[in-house]
Amino acid sequence: MNILILGAAGFIGTNLAIELAKDTSNRITLVDKKRMYFSADVLADNVNIVESDLGINMDYAILENKDVVYHLVSTNVPTTSNQHISQDIEANVLFSAHLFEECVKYDVKKMVFISSGGTVYGKESSCPLSEGTPTNPISSYGVQKITIEKLLYLYNYMYGLDYRIIRLANPYGPYQRPNGILGAVTTFTYKALKGEEITVYGDGSVIRDFIYIDDAVKGILNIVNGENKHHTFNLGCGYGTSIRDVLDSVRKSLGREISVVYKAGRAVDVPVNYLDIGRYEKYYGKLNPICLEEGIRKTAEFMKRKMIL
Amino acid sequence: MNILILGAAGFIGTNLAIELAKDTSNRITLVDKKRMYFSADVLADNVNIVESDLGINMDYAILENKDVVYHLVSTNVPTTSNQHISQDIEANVLFSAHLFEECVKYDVKKMVFISSGGTVYGKESSCPLSEGTPTNPISSYGVQKITIEKLLYLYNYMYGLDYRIIRLANPYGPYQRPNGILGAVTTFTYKALKGEEITVYGDGSVIRDFIYIDDAVKGILNIVNGENKHHTFNLGCGYGTSIRDVLDSVRKSLGREISVVYKAGRAVDVPVNYLDIGRYEKYYGKLNPICLEEGIRKTAEFMKRKMIL
Repeated sequence: MNILILGAAGFIGTNLAIELAKDTSNRITLVDKKRMYFSADVLADNVNIVESDLGINMDYAILENKDVVYHLVSTNVPTTSNQHISQDIEANVLFSAHLFEECVKYDVKKMVFISSGGTVYGKESSCPLSEGTPTNPISSYGVQKITIEKLLYLYNYMYGLDYRIIRLANPYGPYQRPNGILGAVTTFTYKALKGEEITVYGDGSVIRDFIYIDDAVKGILNIVNGENKHHTFNLGCGYGTSIRDVLDSVRKSLGREISVVYKAGRAVDVPVNYLDIGRYEKYYGKLNPICLEEGIRKTAEFMKRKMIL
Repeated sequence: MNILILGAAGFIGTNLAIELAKDTSNRITLVDKKRMYFSADVLADNVNIVESDLGINMDYAILENKDVVYHLVSTNVPTTSNQHISQDIEANVLFSAHLFEECVKYDVKKMVFISSGGTVYGKESSCPLSEGTPTNPISSYGVQKITIEKLLYLYNYMYGLDYRIIRLANPYGPYQRPNGILGAVTTFTYKALKGEEITVYGDGSVIRDFIYIDDAVKGILNIVNGENKHHTFNLGCGYGTSIRDVLDSVRKSLGREISVVYKAGRAVDVPVNYLDIGRYEKYYGKLNPICLEEGIRKTAEFMKRKMIL
């Protein structure tokens, strides 16, 4: 298959690219703004890296002859998205509308959009959240994801553009940047290994659905390759873990004490969020995600091996 | 109250302005792109007309000291919205985000957004449609309305901006332009009075929820002035009428034969749409909308009186 990944140098793109490249019948094109953003680990005979702008003026000719296009482009993260709402709508929603329009012109066979299981539902409904739960995001990030989802529905309705929407929970693991903005598990693991202080926003009672990136990639590929009446799937481990429990797991997995400082909670944080993955498991079998402690161990091994400590 | 209506020269704005001006304690500012767009009927001692751009670069100082701001600005209509999706997102969604941001800065007390009961729900759910029905629009117009709704939810959550969302069905009546793009009832009435041929898209089986504009304005004002845990209300007559039945009603009301030509249906038309107005009636009492034949009679009288035939 001819596969294109837009926004490919990030955490999910890197892991996805490495997995997809294992199938030598795949021809994979990875696109991001700078070549230097890519990990050397994505290089392979069947992988081609393209440096390109990822805004509305990008060169859409790259869409030609593509069977699957992964849309992983995002200019923001939930915690900061409310600070520049209109600019982000322009960069994400407008860009996506342009992109889908061009996908129709270039006859792209399938568009895959990684949405956000952690933000689209908001805080009004009780967990686990199924795909039919009303969507009331409390971050501009979530509003943007929902709008892009609805545009995909529309382009499918109007022009038959096939698509998959994956409402991904909180993935963690290798190649995630441990910079503390995203990814509590990766950041905590990194700081614990470095012996640095860990910052927690709120009292640690916030609950999230953490999924190890290999499990996420496996799930994504099943959803992308499956044929189904549903276009939208939740993907997470399917249960909630509090930030306190994450800290405990880091302690146990790494066998070392950690130092934690608690700061005031953030309004943009939904207190409890975990996903009902029943739809996924009904069609694609049990996900059997690895447990958090094992995931932390693997993440720590990766960090040591890559000497990024 | 100090009231501002943005996009005030249109059908809903005109009727709303006339009704609001009857209360002489109201100070009303009407804004639209050109002064010449306004009907002279909106002129009153407590009404001030302002000519202004209604895009992201408008002069937001007009928001100062406003108790209620009505957002009636829309650059498109359902039937043509899918032809220039990205431009319309810019003009409507981006503009709304800027507007809400400025409303917070200027401490606007309440924002009223007229959304679209006819397009936000799409065609997957059965009627009557309640406010909790999943929203899967099949027009860019509907996607834009839903996105603006979600932005209002977000601005309320973040900054406490009070708001009302009114998912209005298909209003018809005086001051609606009988140009055939919007408003089947008004257009059919106009053409019947002129003895012109009426064009119907599809076989006339399409079902809509038609509401006479006076009933719509009454409902809007009840919702705007009421205090309620709900911010979003459907507003329509609450039952469906087929296009064929509209034609019959026009015949009966006007007591004359009409000439109809049927053309191919439009993909953007939801086959059946009417609203559950139970939430409205629970809090604000029976709407008791006038029947279609009476509404057509009143609309025809208006057209004759205004000599727009």
